[in-house]
Amino acid sequence: MHIDLTDLPASERYRLLINLVIPRPIALITTRDATGQDNAAPFSFFNVLGEDPPLVVVSMNRRSDGRLKDTTRNMADRGEFVVNLVDEPIAEAMGICALEFPPDDSELDAAGLSLHPAVSVDAGLIAQSPVSLECRVHTSLDMGPERRVVLATVSWLHVRDGLIDPQNRRIRDDAYHPIGRLYARTYCTTRDRFALPGIAYDPVTRGWVRR
Amino acid sequence: MHIDLTDLPASERYRLLINLVIPRPIALITTRDATGQDNAAPFSFFNVLGEDPPLVVVSMNRRSDGRLKDTTRNMADRGEFVVNLVDEPIAEAMGICALEFPPDDSELDAAGLSLHPAVSVDAGLIAQSPVSLECRVHTSLDMGPERRVVLATVSWLHVRDGLIDPQNRRIRDDAYHPIGRLYARTYCTTRDRFALPGIAYDPVTRGWVRR
Repeated sequence: MHIDLTDLPASERYRLLINLVIPRPIALITTRDATGQDNAAPFSFFNVLGEDPPLVVVSMNRRSDGRLKDTTRNMADRGEFVVNLVDEPIAEAMGICALEFPPDDSELDAAGLSLHPAVSVDAGLIAQSPVSLECRVHTSLDMGPERRVVLATVSWLHVRDGLIDPQNRRIRDDAYHPIGRLYARTYCTTRDRFALPGIAYDPVTRGWVRR
Repeated sequence: MHIDLTDLPASERYRLLINLVIPRPIALITTRDATGQDNAAPFSFFNVLGEDPPLVVVSMNRRSDGRLKDTTRNMADRGEFVVNLVDEPIAEAMGICALEFPPDDSELDAAGLSLHPAVSVDAGLIAQSPVSLECRVHTSLDMGPERRVVLATVSWLHVRDGLIDPQNRRIRDDAYHPIGRLYARTYCTTRDRFALPGIAYDPVTRGWVRR
């Protein structure tokens, strides 16, 4: 099937792209507004983009009522935020944070999530999250009225105790179960794993050989 | 564990970030050089970022010998490329395309992959890929000597026959098995799925209720 995306309404383009580009990692982003109120909201138009500098990207659209999301506004006002990664135990709490709460109500309270202070940014670390990245906005690009893309550098990394072996700094696979976003209310675990064979380029056959 | 990323060598930052920000979707990117030679290479610093405009991001580092990757150079020269998504049947072929082949040897041939012509860009669609997105470079950002971030718009979308129900344009879950990048040679399938409960904001309790 061959589809000219420019021929489709935006909602249909959205549905096709989010259904096909999967699995997506999830950032449960915490920000703080000018009055000190904390906000949390999940995004899966998100990824790590590099290590030198350590870099993440997140892309945000508007609320259903056309206003900027709290996350977008707080990022613009402060230039700082925290990416909290999402594993199986906090999947439901992340889903609650995706609801559009009125400004005075706390999705963090409703989701049973609590915050620790960050080291270098004015936003909270979610205590129940396995991994939190302290981020500072590097470049913000409005790609249209509906869409803001933010590139941010990462300063501090916080990892739940027991998740990294302190001897060699390796992640303990059996202790880390992040989930991936598929579409609608559907997610995947990262438990069904496989390894590709070790291979190398072979100059004799100008192909590949197993190592 | 609290880690100041600025204190670590880049290689260690890379290892931590790619091990923790998972699962990542995979773009097997095809490009064409000035002589007409086709190139294919996989990237997981990649995601969809929006639908209006339809937008993807990909971030590329240098080859181990310090030169620009063919993908990076071809993208810069032509401004066009194709993102081919990766499902289970082409996982091994994708792994072969990750090897650093000399300029005259074809990773596509070695991997047993073939190309169809695209509609709107001068790069090939991988025939064996379940989904291909024709992309045009929108904004290219060098974030340092090692790292180029490219935002690109998507024009045409090609989907394998049988993967989308032609009646309602819904993806057939049981026909689409994309894989996610974890780390090293380890990947996850998207077969182990779960759905979060349907919930809504409840103005009475100022919390959430099941729908």
